[in-house]
Amino acid sequence: MTSLEQIISLAKRRGFIFPGSEVYGGLAGTWDYGPLGVALKNNIKSLWWKQFVFEREDMFGLDAAILMNARVWEASGHVAWFADPMVECTKCKRRFRADQIEGTTCPECEGALTEPRQFNMMFKTQVGAVEDSSNTSYLRPETAQGIFVNFKNVIDSFHPKLPFGIAQIGKAFRNEITPRDFVFRSREFEQMEIEYFVREGEWEVHFEHFRSEMLRWCDSIGLTKESVSELEVAAGDRAHYSKRTIDFEFEYPFGKKELYGLAYRTNYDLTKHSEYSSKDLSYRDEEANETFIPHVIEPSLGVDRTVLAVLLSAYDEDELGGSKRVVLRLKPTLAPIKVAVFPLASNKEHLVAKAREIYGELKKTIGSVVWDDIGNVGKRYRRQDEIGTPWCVTVDYQTLEDDTVTVRDRDSGEQERVGSLELSDFFSKKLR
Amino acid sequence: MTSLEQIISLAKRRGFIFPGSEVYGGLAGTWDYGPLGVALKNNIKSLWWKQFVFEREDMFGLDAAILMNARVWEASGHVAWFADPMVECTKCKRRFRADQIEGTTCPECEGALTEPRQFNMMFKTQVGAVEDSSNTSYLRPETAQGIFVNFKNVIDSFHPKLPFGIAQIGKAFRNEITPRDFVFRSREFEQMEIEYFVREGEWEVHFEHFRSEMLRWCDSIGLTKESVSELEVAAGDRAHYSKRTIDFEFEYPFGKKELYGLAYRTNYDLTKHSEYSSKDLSYRDEEANETFIPHVIEPSLGVDRTVLAVLLSAYDEDELGGSKRVVLRLKPTLAPIKVAVFPLASNKEHLVAKAREIYGELKKTIGSVVWDDIGNVGKRYRRQDEIGTPWCVTVDYQTLEDDTVTVRDRDSGEQERVGSLELSDFFSKKLR
Repeated sequence: MTSLEQIISLAKRRGFIFPGSEVYGGLAGTWDYGPLGVALKNNIKSLWWKQFVFEREDMFGLDAAILMNARVWEASGHVAWFADPMVECTKCKRRFRADQIEGTTCPECEGALTEPRQFNMMFKTQVGAVEDSSNTSYLRPETAQGIFVNFKNVIDSFHPKLPFGIAQIGKAFRNEITPRDFVFRSREFEQMEIEYFVREGEWEVHFEHFRSEMLRWCDSIGLTKESVSELEVAAGDRAHYSKRTIDFEFEYPFGKKELYGLAYRTNYDLTKHSEYSSKDLSYRDEEANETFIPHVIEPSLGVDRTVLAVLLSAYDEDELGGSKRVVLRLKPTLAPIKVAVFPLASNKEHLVAKAREIYGELKKTIGSVVWDDIGNVGKRYRRQDEIGTPWCVTVDYQTLEDDTVTVRDRDSGEQERVGSLELSDFFSKKLR
Repeated sequence: MTSLEQIISLAKRRGFIFPGSEVYGGLAGTWDYGPLGVALKNNIKSLWWKQFVFEREDMFGLDAAILMNARVWEASGHVAWFADPMVECTKCKRRFRADQIEGTTCPECEGALTEPRQFNMMFKTQVGAVEDSSNTSYLRPETAQGIFVNFKNVIDSFHPKLPFGIAQIGKAFRNEITPRDFVFRSREFEQMEIEYFVREGEWEVHFEHFRSEMLRWCDSIGLTKESVSELEVAAGDRAHYSKRTIDFEFEYPFGKKELYGLAYRTNYDLTKHSEYSSKDLSYRDEEANETFIPHVIEPSLGVDRTVLAVLLSAYDEDELGGSKRVVLRLKPTLAPIKVAVFPLASNKEHLVAKAREIYGELKKTIGSVVWDDIGNVGKRYRRQDEIGTPWCVTVDYQTLEDDTVTVRDRDSGEQERVGSLELSDFFSKKLR
């Protein structure tokens, strides 16, 4: 099995993910996505948006602000409940999660520990010029609430009929006490969330629909059936608002852990926001002449956990043509670079000119295409294999004669000759 | 000239932009992008990424965390200098910008005001379990610093040769005392920034290059030459790090104001980060056997200001076929919806079935396509005009005979008949 260290090392070395603020010794729980990481992450987000928004008729996009009125978090229960029980050292003031401490003294300085107290995981800040509690705001700990408080806006602008959903991709923040396991548990992360509004009596059928949609999604990003399993979350372990939750767990190197969640949130959130805001957040069915607060199915996906699961699933070490290599078997749609173009020899003007011409054309039509003329072709293949580039195009002497190039496949290492004028179509079709 | 109120009203009514946390009375300076606003914003960001990253060979993408080690902001000068002089009321504790106050008493409660003091515009928060100043962090007030602190990472992973740039799109936060003018001056906003690293002696040529690239960008998003002007920022008005700055100003309804900035930042930031981090942030030119800290050209673009300028430029009221309409003349690449598909009559099964088939096919190939069968075709045209949909496809009785449909152009109102099988190609070509 691929180890976390292999992935962290590759991610750093090849420019996928760097520790946040690294030159300053870092900031625990933050990560910076490098050039290849941004590309991978953007491809994941685009594919999700395509599958869950563009290809559907019942989904509305949203991008709500990270800073929200603090009343939102009172209504949602986050101010009161989004907390870990913590003990504090009376001497060095360090805090520890109560469930991770064995004794009554501080593991750092041996000072006496306090009784467990609730420590809220939301990051607090002050908005505006006056520094008092009336101006307290929080960095949102989930994108979901941005959707609930815009429910009425979407209804008023688009008049959708039930069932329908609102989808959002955006950053969320949690002041985790012990961020760990690379991007798995970090303090700043990105979510892809849907709140899908339904009639109460129909929640089960929509729950099942999204359950299968989420499995289809796992398949489309290259996670094997064996690596993903469903966990029916027991009543006592569910969030306070949920009547049913399934965790989709992934076989990470550090254990089987939550990748995604699917929850039936009832009409808890809209009801609470109606109460706290004194605004009518109900839905009116004109035909049936009914007015009610819809119930909600929530598929919730972490972008960073997806990136990690995708990298772990794609990572492989094998032997090809007698030499060992590291290869990322990424789905072509997700690969940061789609095609690499090489001139067979970098000191032959004709070859280079022809390769540049093909490179320029592919860059226009395929987009994410790179040029490489350093070292021999074998080394270039290895470099591209390691970052998951599905195809390499080599321009050689035969190209100058018959205008065909070699297209080499990342996974099999097989090569075929393709007419240079057909390359754009050739790759476009494969990427569809 | 289009008024700000017209845009705010359209944005709210049709689902482009809503006030943030609106059901709770809002949170000043925050805005939520609705379904059409997300689409417009995403299209702007994708086009920028295409033009400034994908189509170039010298640009590397990045997505750094919003929360950074506080030392970053000490090095950059933000802790010391990113402040407005403020006076505080000794009675009600409200603060006001010193340059906007005329007397020595509070305009709200007539209490006595203090002498002006510096009020830092960064949002402060605490990261980790210990609540002391050692854990202070800030929400980044600009994306630029995330690029500088990753300069060495990009060098180490990609070994680029000068000149090269690092590009980033992301959120930034400023605790503006008086957020105003819709999304123009808000507390949470999004930036598209490039730090382009050059040899000191070559800064002017690269500055000129990006100056023309930015004008090309303005043209590509539909801003007229007349609406954008350049302002050479005088030495006394420039940021402390800049030796030359041009503001690209746009004719907003509230005056000619900064849209974008282009600055020559010298080697100020990398030098400071070298100093504060004790890390070597120099560039090594192997061929010339030189080691030095590169100089920087920074094109800085605000996403939200772009959205506003694009909406203002596109908004028009005219008469078409004898009736008045509101039309958003958005560039087709930016339009939230590319094509709307209508059955001529919504109660004729054959028409509806055929139209659904065409709609399904276009949704797969073009993506952002909507269905509308409410009201008469004239009303549907008006609805689509108002949100900038460039083309409407109507399936009518002739379609059932010869498999052609009516394609109606938003700007001219002209209609042409196109074979239904050719529609995907027809629109794909227009969108290129």
